[in-house]
Amino acid sequence: MDLNYNIIGTGALGGFYGGILAHSGKQVNFLLHSDYDYVLENGLQVDSGENSFHIDKVNAYNDTNKMPKADVVLVTLKTTNNHLLKSLLKPIVDKNTIVILIQNGIYMEERLSEDFPQLTIGGGSAFICCYKAGPGHIHHVDYGSLTIGLHNNKSLENIDIMKQVVSDFKLAGIQSNYDDNLFSIRWKKLIWNIAFNGICVVLNTQTNKLMNNPSSRAMLKDIMLEVISAARACGVPIEDEIAEKTLIHTDKMTPYAPSMKLDYDAKRPLEIEAIYDNAASLAAKHGYDMKLTKMIAKELRFLTSDENY
Amino acid sequence: MDLNYNIIGTGALGGFYGGILAHSGKQVNFLLHSDYDYVLENGLQVDSGENSFHIDKVNAYNDTNKMPKADVVLVTLKTTNNHLLKSLLKPIVDKNTIVILIQNGIYMEERLSEDFPQLTIGGGSAFICCYKAGPGHIHHVDYGSLTIGLHNNKSLENIDIMKQVVSDFKLAGIQSNYDDNLFSIRWKKLIWNIAFNGICVVLNTQTNKLMNNPSSRAMLKDIMLEVISAARACGVPIEDEIAEKTLIHTDKMTPYAPSMKLDYDAKRPLEIEAIYDNAASLAAKHGYDMKLTKMIAKELRFLTSDENY
Repeated sequence: MDLNYNIIGTGALGGFYGGILAHSGKQVNFLLHSDYDYVLENGLQVDSGENSFHIDKVNAYNDTNKMPKADVVLVTLKTTNNHLLKSLLKPIVDKNTIVILIQNGIYMEERLSEDFPQLTIGGGSAFICCYKAGPGHIHHVDYGSLTIGLHNNKSLENIDIMKQVVSDFKLAGIQSNYDDNLFSIRWKKLIWNIAFNGICVVLNTQTNKLMNNPSSRAMLKDIMLEVISAARACGVPIEDEIAEKTLIHTDKMTPYAPSMKLDYDAKRPLEIEAIYDNAASLAAKHGYDMKLTKMIAKELRFLTSDENY
Repeated sequence: MDLNYNIIGTGALGGFYGGILAHSGKQVNFLLHSDYDYVLENGLQVDSGENSFHIDKVNAYNDTNKMPKADVVLVTLKTTNNHLLKSLLKPIVDKNTIVILIQNGIYMEERLSEDFPQLTIGGGSAFICCYKAGPGHIHHVDYGSLTIGLHNNKSLENIDIMKQVVSDFKLAGIQSNYDDNLFSIRWKKLIWNIAFNGICVVLNTQTNKLMNNPSSRAMLKDIMLEVISAARACGVPIEDEIAEKTLIHTDKMTPYAPSMKLDYDAKRPLEIEAIYDNAASLAAKHGYDMKLTKMIAKELRFLTSDENY
C-alpha cells in the first residue's frame, strides 16, 4: 500500500523524519509554525553528511484546517505542546487515520485517547541526535533509528499499516522496527532520557562531560537503575545490566546536548511532565517510589520557574 | 574554674566564637594562616549589629609549635582541612586537653581519635549565619547558638569542663548547651546542612529562593525526611515533623548563602565528605540507603571536579 503522511510539528524531529520520507518519494504534508513562510519560499534543508538533501517544494501548511487528510499522522511536537493536539488533530483524523506520537516521555497516548476515544493511536521512540540549525534547516548529528508500536486498536489491518510505515522508513534509509509493546518502547527510552536530559540541565553540561567524570557517571547509572526498577514494577522486564550497556553505548556517541538542554538554553518549556512526572506517577501506582527521578523533576522546576528562567 | 582556649582556624566561625570569648575576658589564642600578619597588626573586627566589637591585641599564632597549651582547643577549621589536625594538634594537646570540633558533618571525632586514641574529644554544632568579610573581619548575620557534647572520656571531670565551656559562652552572650549525645547533635544539624548546603550549590541559589519555590521547598523536605530516617536507622530518634519545623524556622531566617555556597563561589574545597559521604556511610552500615544524599554528593563532585571548577 502507498501511505501518505502528515507531519505535525516540523522542528528537528519532524523535519528530519518527514523530510527523509518526502525525499524518498512519499507524499508528505508538513505543519509548520514559525518557519512556515521561510520553508514555503526556500524549502527544507537536512544536513546529514553524505546523505544531506534539500527539498525545494515542501507541502507546507500553517493550519491543519487547510491540510488534507493522510493515512498516517506523525506527531513530532514537543510534549509540552500536546495540549494543542485536540484542536490540531480534529480536522485531519477519522476512523481510518493512525496517529503516531514520536515523542519522548510516557503516557502521552493515554492522554490523547481521552480526547479521541475512537482514534487509532500509536507511539514511537526515536534514537537520534539532531537539532534545528535555523529556519527550515535541520542538522542531523548521529543515529536515527525509530521504533514504533500501537497503543490501541491492534487489528491486523492496523498492524499492517504500522509495518508499512516501518518499511517506508527503511526504504528511506532509516533503521526502523515495529514492536508490539509500546509501553515497553516508552520505558526503554526513558532509561536514557530520565538520566541525561535533566542532569545535563541541572549540571549545565553535555553527555561526554557527564560520562568522563566518575561521580556523574555513577549517578547516571543510579538513575538508570531506578528507571529499570520502575519499569519492572510496571510489568516491563528490563535487566539491570542495560544500565551499564547504555553507558557504554553513550560513550560512543558524539558529545551531545540533549533536547532538554537545548530547550533550557533557549528558555523554552521543558518536557518535565512527560519524561519525569508521568514515569514517577506510573511507578507509584505500582508501588515503586522513583526518588531520584522526582528529585530531578523538582530541580528542573526550580530552575525553570518564573523567577529563575 | 578559669579555662583558657586555643582556636584552631580563625575563619568566620573561629573568629566569631574565639573573638567573643576573648572580648568577654577569656584568655584566647588564635591560630591564623592567611590573615596572620594582618591580624597581628590590626586586630580582629566582629560586626554583629549593636554587639559589634574590635579586639586590638590578638594572641595570634601562625604555628601551633609556638602556641601555648590551653585547657580547651576549639577546632573551627573546615572539615576539608581535618587531615592537618594530626600535626596541628600534636604540640598543643596532652591528657588534660579537651579538643572540641565545632564543625559541620559527622564522624570527624571518630577519625580524630584514630590519630589521638587517648585524647578527650568533643564536638559542637553551631547554628549561626556568619562569613568572613575580609582579613580579620567577620560579619555575623544571624543566630549563634552552640551545642557541644563529648565524644569519649565522659568522666564527671570532663563533663564539668564542658559545662564550664557552655557557661563561658553564655557569659559572653552566646546561647549554649551541653548535650550528652554528640551523635544526636551531629545528626540533627545534618537535617539542615544536607538539604541546604548542597542544593544551594547545585541550583546556584540561596535559602529564601529555595524556600519560596514550591518544587524546591518540597525537595528540601524530601531530603530532610531522608536524613531523619537515616538518623533513626542509626539509633537517633527524630520525629518526621522536625522536617516541616525546620522549613518554617528557615522561613524566618535572613536570606542566606550557606557556607558551602560561599566555598563554591570562592572555588574552595567543599565539605562533601563530612556532610554527605559520612552520613550516607553511617546510614548504610545500619541498612538505610540515603539515595538523595548520595545523589547530591555526586552532583557536587561533578561541579567541583578539576575540569569544571
